[in-house]
Amino acid sequence: MIAELVRSILEGDPRAVAQAISTVENEPAEAQTLLSALHAKVGRAARIGITGPPGVGKSTLINEMAVREQARGRRVGVIAVDPTSPFTGGALLGDRVRMHKATDEGAAFIRSMASRGMAGGIARATADAADVLDAAGKDVVIIETIGVGQSEIEVSRLTDCTLVVLSPESGDSIQAMKSGIMEVADLIVINKKDRPGADRLMHDLRSAFELGLRKRNVEMIQTSAYNGTGVPEVLEAVDRYLEHARTSGSFRERRRRILGHRLRSACEFMMRQSLWDRAGAPRMLDHATEAVFNGSRPLYEAARDLLKELSS
Amino acid sequence: MIAELVRSILEGDPRAVAQAISTVENEPAEAQTLLSALHAKVGRAARIGITGPPGVGKSTLINEMAVREQARGRRVGVIAVDPTSPFTGGALLGDRVRMHKATDEGAAFIRSMASRGMAGGIARATADAADVLDAAGKDVVIIETIGVGQSEIEVSRLTDCTLVVLSPESGDSIQAMKSGIMEVADLIVINKKDRPGADRLMHDLRSAFELGLRKRNVEMIQTSAYNGTGVPEVLEAVDRYLEHARTSGSFRERRRRILGHRLRSACEFMMRQSLWDRAGAPRMLDHATEAVFNGSRPLYEAARDLLKELSS
Repeated sequence: MIAELVRSILEGDPRAVAQAISTVENEPAEAQTLLSALHAKVGRAARIGITGPPGVGKSTLINEMAVREQARGRRVGVIAVDPTSPFTGGALLGDRVRMHKATDEGAAFIRSMASRGMAGGIARATADAADVLDAAGKDVVIIETIGVGQSEIEVSRLTDCTLVVLSPESGDSIQAMKSGIMEVADLIVINKKDRPGADRLMHDLRSAFELGLRKRNVEMIQTSAYNGTGVPEVLEAVDRYLEHARTSGSFRERRRRILGHRLRSACEFMMRQSLWDRAGAPRMLDHATEAVFNGSRPLYEAARDLLKELSS
Repeated sequence: MIAELVRSILEGDPRAVAQAISTVENEPAEAQTLLSALHAKVGRAARIGITGPPGVGKSTLINEMAVREQARGRRVGVIAVDPTSPFTGGALLGDRVRMHKATDEGAAFIRSMASRGMAGGIARATADAADVLDAAGKDVVIIETIGVGQSEIEVSRLTDCTLVVLSPESGDSIQAMKSGIMEVADLIVINKKDRPGADRLMHDLRSAFELGLRKRNVEMIQTSAYNGTGVPEVLEAVDRYLEHARTSGSFRERRRRILGHRLRSACEFMMRQSLWDRAGAPRMLDHATEAVFNGSRPLYEAARDLLKELSS
């Protein structure tokens, strides 16, 4: 059963890939077996993070990037964990999936993932889903996240290269600075470059970098993703970034760091599971909750007792 | 030392409160002792969550709410975990803290918390900080979060009443629906009601509710927070909501559920700490990482081995 699924994934069968990603999302324990079976085939794909505030045009940019990557013979997978992305589907109140140009024109695999309620967090699920796409033979895996929120920023730390996308609209740069996404930027894309304020934004960002808000300089590219302007330059910059990272050894170091991080999270996830799967755990938790609720026990003392009880 | 800090907090001394919240943010282990000492004095304050997309005017609304609450003799504490909030300070690129009317005019305590890199997560830190403000004698604790992001939505589940703030600007309602914040809404505030589309937004939301996207009906209030229009109605609606919840018993049930959730998180947090504080843990993690990195061991198998080693 699993052997067949593994074979189909390795052949790049989109249905098998979709099934595997669902398993990653919903059944983390089963997913572990699956991922272990795929393990020897993982590592070849370049993982590109695309992050930024809502409305800056991340999905349009990704679409254009995917079309061009495919045109030069590269297989592309996209994982969208941005709830505001048109890729995430979920059409509500007249909202429509605005574009799937990449899938229409070629073999890009686009998959949205819920950004909430996922066992073990979005970062775990996203990295695992990227492993599946990698094993399925994608050359490039693009991960779209919204550049707001603790868990979402964590996701963009799990890629080989992260692009922060901004637009000249008011407040974007400030919001980006404050929310911490600038710290994960390897490249900056200023989309909607025809709108007023694009040069100003670029200037402001440069000043911020010069003021030492970031240690190293970061390349900035202006685009109009809706008509493709600047998109080839973005792809070239990504290639250049990865090339340089491979040469300097930072690529390997970063991948090792990411694995360390994932390993740590995986341990914590397994530990949490074994803790609450233990017989009697719900009853013990109820008792402890009641003691805190009726005021007879402080929260953290109750937690310490409960942990002792659960681990005994 | 701690006895003195506890006494100052209970007297409502703002500097002691600030120090305690810093401890909650940065030194969770010390914070546990402090919170245990405050425990008997926690539980009186109403905890109100204010969440919504960036730019809808949450901070302006909170400011107006705080001013009015103070005018009727209530002490207010505000915790902002929204990186786009003007309360969060961190003036960058000419951005300014736009308003602190509430603090200028009275005794509101406004505190921003970083929404990233916090040990044990934002939800833990925010709930603990609310406990501190509660013990310090605040009648109302308002928690501002950005309505995007997994961890941020979790925060708004830890309050007695959550207001989702939207504005008629394009896409807000859709974004809110998709990101899952509508699920946490106890009241909906449509701010910037003078802008075109406010009635349309209200109508769309009503249709969505009628379509069964939400089980119970949710009161909606239109405001223009910048000049205070509708703000008294918001406060009345919150009072009404809490009053009804207290009468029906759902208030107690919700607090019990929140404590259960916090207790669970506290256990996991303590467990994580004891796991990685163990002698030799960094070396064991490095070894395991190397094995995954060089391809000799799949990630989840290495994690299982590592967990066994760490727990032995």
